[in-house]
Amino acid sequence: MTTPTTDLETYLAATAERRLGRYLDFLRIPSVGGLPEHAADTRRAAEVLAAELREGGMEHVEVAETAGHPVVYADWLHAGAAAPTVLVYAHYDVQPGDPLELWETSPFEPIVRDGRVLGRGAADDKAHVQMLARVAEALLAVRGGFPVNVKYVFEGEEESSSVHLDGWLEANRERLAADLAMICDTGFFEGNLPAICVGLRGIVYVQLDVEGPSVDLHSGSFGGAVVNPATALVEMLAALKGPDGRIRVPDFYEDVVPLTDEDRAASAALPFDEAAWMAEIGVEALGGETGYTTLERKSARPTLDVNGIWGGFTGDGPKTILPAHAHAKVSCRLVADQDPARIFALLRDHLLAIAPPGVRVTVHDLGMGRGTLTPIDHPATQAAARAIEATFGVAPLYFREGGSIPVAASFERILRQPVVLLGFMNPDARAHAPNENMVLANFETGLRALVRMFDELASYPAA
Amino acid sequence: MTTPTTDLETYLAATAERRLGRYLDFLRIPSVGGLPEHAADTRRAAEVLAAELREGGMEHVEVAETAGHPVVYADWLHAGAAAPTVLVYAHYDVQPGDPLELWETSPFEPIVRDGRVLGRGAADDKAHVQMLARVAEALLAVRGGFPVNVKYVFEGEEESSSVHLDGWLEANRERLAADLAMICDTGFFEGNLPAICVGLRGIVYVQLDVEGPSVDLHSGSFGGAVVNPATALVEMLAALKGPDGRIRVPDFYEDVVPLTDEDRAASAALPFDEAAWMAEIGVEALGGETGYTTLERKSARPTLDVNGIWGGFTGDGPKTILPAHAHAKVSCRLVADQDPARIFALLRDHLLAIAPPGVRVTVHDLGMGRGTLTPIDHPATQAAARAIEATFGVAPLYFREGGSIPVAASFERILRQPVVLLGFMNPDARAHAPNENMVLANFETGLRALVRMFDELASYPAA
Repeated sequence: MTTPTTDLETYLAATAERRLGRYLDFLRIPSVGGLPEHAADTRRAAEVLAAELREGGMEHVEVAETAGHPVVYADWLHAGAAAPTVLVYAHYDVQPGDPLELWETSPFEPIVRDGRVLGRGAADDKAHVQMLARVAEALLAVRGGFPVNVKYVFEGEEESSSVHLDGWLEANRERLAADLAMICDTGFFEGNLPAICVGLRGIVYVQLDVEGPSVDLHSGSFGGAVVNPATALVEMLAALKGPDGRIRVPDFYEDVVPLTDEDRAASAALPFDEAAWMAEIGVEALGGETGYTTLERKSARPTLDVNGIWGGFTGDGPKTILPAHAHAKVSCRLVADQDPARIFALLRDHLLAIAPPGVRVTVHDLGMGRGTLTPIDHPATQAAARAIEATFGVAPLYFREGGSIPVAASFERILRQPVVLLGFMNPDARAHAPNENMVLANFETGLRALVRMFDELASYPAA
Repeated sequence: MTTPTTDLETYLAATAERRLGRYLDFLRIPSVGGLPEHAADTRRAAEVLAAELREGGMEHVEVAETAGHPVVYADWLHAGAAAPTVLVYAHYDVQPGDPLELWETSPFEPIVRDGRVLGRGAADDKAHVQMLARVAEALLAVRGGFPVNVKYVFEGEEESSSVHLDGWLEANRERLAADLAMICDTGFFEGNLPAICVGLRGIVYVQLDVEGPSVDLHSGSFGGAVVNPATALVEMLAALKGPDGRIRVPDFYEDVVPLTDEDRAASAALPFDEAAWMAEIGVEALGGETGYTTLERKSARPTLDVNGIWGGFTGDGPKTILPAHAHAKVSCRLVADQDPARIFALLRDHLLAIAPPGVRVTVHDLGMGRGTLTPIDHPATQAAARAIEATFGVAPLYFREGGSIPVAASFERILRQPVVLLGFMNPDARAHAPNENMVLANFETGLRALVRMFDELASYPAA
């Protein structure tokens, strides 16, 4: 195991200005993968990145075609058979810039101000793309190589639901073989406190359609005897949760990995200001599953939420109808080891079982994704923790994210690799929103932490 | 008490062709009170009607102004102080004709075919307007007068929620004093079986608004800890009814007049083909309050229905939000003696009481109306029964209507008059729909039944 040498630090200090210049140049490319008018820009970003990686000394650099935007692949595999191989992921596509009027700068004309880089993609995720390119360049220039074998994968469709990534991973399973996947697309905890995200929730999203009479009926002439689809819908939805906030779908919790004492202690150690959080979202009370804290409820426990509901008359004033049909969008956030396909089947079967006679109920799958969990005591998590402590000077906090990063589940499922999430975005980065920004200190210290992470992973068990 | 004389029958036989001609002429006037472009037509119908009443010998004929379309008033008050006074109501305005493409004729170019008059208003309610005008004319021509004192009130805004009628009734309370109100705007039972409607339901209609966070939230980052307004809404709505179909608002049933054995026997005697009714509306099972029949549930018992519901994401596909707010339109059909204002207060207070912490709930009054009930053994109901049996040759059935006729409650509430509903529309009249029609035999026998009704009412107790 080596540590960042003075030579490396000298190199990084000497190249700081050029590094910032390249980062800003890369932000100037409007690689909005989701907008057809930016398809050429998105490809240009891939090609610029490939050129930077080649110039830095990475090997097998390729702008790999998919049915959508290309994946940029590069590797360096000379650390030896005893050293582990690490697959590293980030994405070079970005969200659209609008609404433009809310930006303090133009989204694709980045500026540096008050120690932050402002611009679309400054954080999500071009910061990590640029950090990884610079880490490769520095290690190869100063030390002649990485302490581990590395395979870099940069996606161009992360902001478009990674529609072609799974297929590409499947088609390249052998070439992508590794001992560990490291995803660089997350950030620190509130207060910009160094932190590692150890869990992501999965999701099952369904549409529930309840159909009754063939047309809307007069509620006076028919009400009381005809089963009202809107009433049936609300009764079915209400029956899905108990007063204790527990989900009442049979076997729903069967595969949930319980929170350990260490998990709960880590969560309790997070400096979470519940009152400020409530004030920010404008609510005066919270709710949820009995026996769990707010942080646990919103990130470490499964949920069931009505995302949308509609049926019958929704205009102004009264209209006395008994609606012919009513609908809801419902989603469950899942935690490890809940299998989304199994949860979908349980939810669907339960809804069909509790549907009252007199209505026809259908449940449609609108999407699913698996949750991930890399425990705090996992060697990859501990390597990341040491890398952060050595560079940021403080032991990281551990938290779970309530949302999903579908690619994390893809690496686990398709490539059978454990996943560690190591990212350095400041929590007020405003990813996807106007005035996206990256704290430059996070960028600079973060790239040193990435160097240290590779050093730490030199002792990670190789297959 | 007199009965229709041979003279009267001779008169009616001799004037049959002219009577049909006037009826068709009246249908040709597109008195669509609800459409501004037909305001002049609506006034013309009022004036034509007033002229017919004057010509027939009615007195104090007046096209009485309101803030909307006029009321046509006429009376004949020479039956003597010992005879009762009967207020008679019908309406001369009609529904719009569209959708025109579904009519077999043009809605305002009536035709006679297969024993029916087809045209907008042929049944609802110009049939009764014309029958009452002809009854007056015949009685005054043949007998020189009515057996009772009569006050005719013809409204021009029934299809526009009778917005100005209550004010006009209040302003004319003394002039409208009577022992009984007879509303001619109903019809017979399925199979065109002579029947009397003895009950109408009232209504309370509310909008329920549930507000949570200040904006839609990401369901991954917030779900599980933030009270979801859509979930809160469905839980509140579901809590309003028990598995027995009973409404769980405290004291809701307190003022409900229980069904008597006679009520239940009359309802059970109705030739109701439940299977055909279900097939017509396209449902395979029915539901409702335990312990009551379908007919009772849909007309003689109070209800609570969700008329509309909306909130959150309702487009195609998945969107992972926790909605900031959710809404429902909810109405209760009421029966005698439920007071709508009291039920509104009970419902509002209960909803506010069961609202979970973390959301703000408001309940808005979107309208209310009282139900009416004139028991089967009421002397006015029995007079109508004898009139029907004497003319249609069969004792009437008794039924209740699940909907509301707000003017019935207005006569009860403002003028303190008991209300009898006597109408002759065939049940397949398609009121409000394309191809509205009136069975001519119902019109012809019905006007004879009206003559007989006045004769029967000669012995009704006068104030």
